[in-house]
Amino acid sequence: MLVIGDEILSGRTTDANLVHLAHELSEAAIELKEVRVVADDHDDIVAAVRALSARWDHIFTSGGIGPTHDDITAEAIAGAFGVAIDVRDDARALLGAYYRRNNVEFNAARMRMARIPEGAVLIDNPISVAPGFTLGNVHVMAGVPAIFCAMVASVLPTLMGGAPMLSRSFRIDRPEGDFAAELAEIALLHQRVAIGSYPFVLNGHFGSNIVFRSIEAAALDLAAEAFCMAFPMARK
Amino acid sequence: MLVIGDEILSGRTTDANLVHLAHELSEAAIELKEVRVVADDHDDIVAAVRALSARWDHIFTSGGIGPTHDDITAEAIAGAFGVAIDVRDDARALLGAYYRRNNVEFNAARMRMARIPEGAVLIDNPISVAPGFTLGNVHVMAGVPAIFCAMVASVLPTLMGGAPMLSRSFRIDRPEGDFAAELAEIALLHQRVAIGSYPFVLNGHFGSNIVFRSIEAAALDLAAEAFCMAFPMARK
Repeated sequence: MLVIGDEILSGRTTDANLVHLAHELSEAAIELKEVRVVADDHDDIVAAVRALSARWDHIFTSGGIGPTHDDITAEAIAGAFGVAIDVRDDARALLGAYYRRNNVEFNAARMRMARIPEGAVLIDNPISVAPGFTLGNVHVMAGVPAIFCAMVASVLPTLMGGAPMLSRSFRIDRPEGDFAAELAEIALLHQRVAIGSYPFVLNGHFGSNIVFRSIEAAALDLAAEAFCMAFPMARK
Repeated sequence: MLVIGDEILSGRTTDANLVHLAHELSEAAIELKEVRVVADDHDDIVAAVRALSARWDHIFTSGGIGPTHDDITAEAIAGAFGVAIDVRDDARALLGAYYRRNNVEFNAARMRMARIPEGAVLIDNPISVAPGFTLGNVHVMAGVPAIFCAMVASVLPTLMGGAPMLSRSFRIDRPEGDFAAELAEIALLHQRVAIGSYPFVLNGHFGSNIVFRSIEAAALDLAAEAFCMAFPMARK
C-alpha cells in the first residue's frame, strides 16, 4: 500500500485507510506485505510507485486525487508508468451528470478529477462520483476514508485471492522472556504456521498476544494444541 | 520511519507509534518525510534500512527487539550495515542488574536482548531496561508503545532540529471543488508557506481542513490573512 499525503507524516491524522485496507485484505486472504507513506511530492510518489509496482502483485494507493493544487497523484502515476494523462470523456461525463443533478458548478478545479492516465480502468466511487482508477497493477483511490472504503469494496472482488488465511489468538499474562524459548520450539516444529508474539504492558504488567496464522486448518490445529499443552495458563 | 512487524500489516493493530513519532518530530521541527511498514522478514528489513538510511538524515525503527524468535530487527540492522552483532557487556550488565532486582530469571531468550551491533550506542529504556540502540543514522526502538515513547524521548534531544515549524488551520464546510481554484491562487502567491487541503465527509456534507505551514511567521501571517480575505466563511 502507498499512502500519499503530508497529513499523515505531520501527525495530523492517523491512517484509518491503512487499518481498513489491512483488515479487508486479510479477510480476502491477500497478504499485505509492505506499506509506504510519502509526502505530496511528485518525485517521491513516482519512485515509490515504481519500486512497489515492480516488487508486489498489487499496489493500493490512497490520497491525492481531489480537485486542489496539492492533489498530484494521478499525474505522478502517469509519470511512473510513462503514459500520457488528460481529461477522459467517460470520467467527464460521470462528473458532469453528477454535478448537474446536484446543481453544482463543474469548474476547472473539478475537471482535474476527470484527468485519467492513458490505459487506466476507472474505479467506481458511489459516494462523490469522481473515480479512482487502476493502471497496471496499481489501484489509485481517494484519501477520504468513506470514499476509500467504497473504492476498496469495488476493487477487491476483481482481484484473485489465495486460500483464506486462518488464525488463532492466545494471551499470556507473563513477560515474553519467560516463554520465548518454549515458543521458539513450537515455532520450529510447526513451520507451516506463522507464529507471532505481540507484547504489551497493561497496568504495569507485561503480557503478550500470541497469534497463529496458516492457510492449513490441520496444521493450525496441531500448532495451537501443542501451544495449549505447553502453556496451560494461556487464555483464548 | 520504519515500522517492523506483521501485526500492522495484518490489520491486527493500528500504529500508535507512527502517530506518536509524527507528532513528536513535528513539535521538534523535524520533518517526517517517509514511512515504511515491513513484515518480520530479514531481507525486507535490510533492504528498507539501506534505502531509508541512504536517503534521509535519521531513521527511526519500531518493533522486533524483544526476546522471541520473531524479534529479528537487531540482526537485520547489523546486516544492513555489514557489522557483527553479539551480546555486549554493558547491555548484559544492565539487564542482569534489572532481572536480579526483580527476581526474574536471566535466561537465553532474555540474553538475546543484550545482542547489540558493533559500534552502536545504546538507547535508554526506563521501562523494562532492555535497550534500543543507534547505529549510524538509524535509531532502533521497541514496538511496545509505552517503551517506544520513552525511547523517543531519550533520542530526540540528541538530534539537531531546524527552526520550529509554525502552522495555522482553518475549516471550510464546502466541497473542495468549490474553492480549489482560489486556494491554488493563494498557494501560488505564498510559496514560502506549504498549504494543504484535507477533505472530509461529515454527516453527508463535504468539507475540508486547510492547513498552512511555514518556518517564517511573517509569511504565514500574510498567507493566512489572504486566505481569510478570500474565504470569510472559513472557521479557525
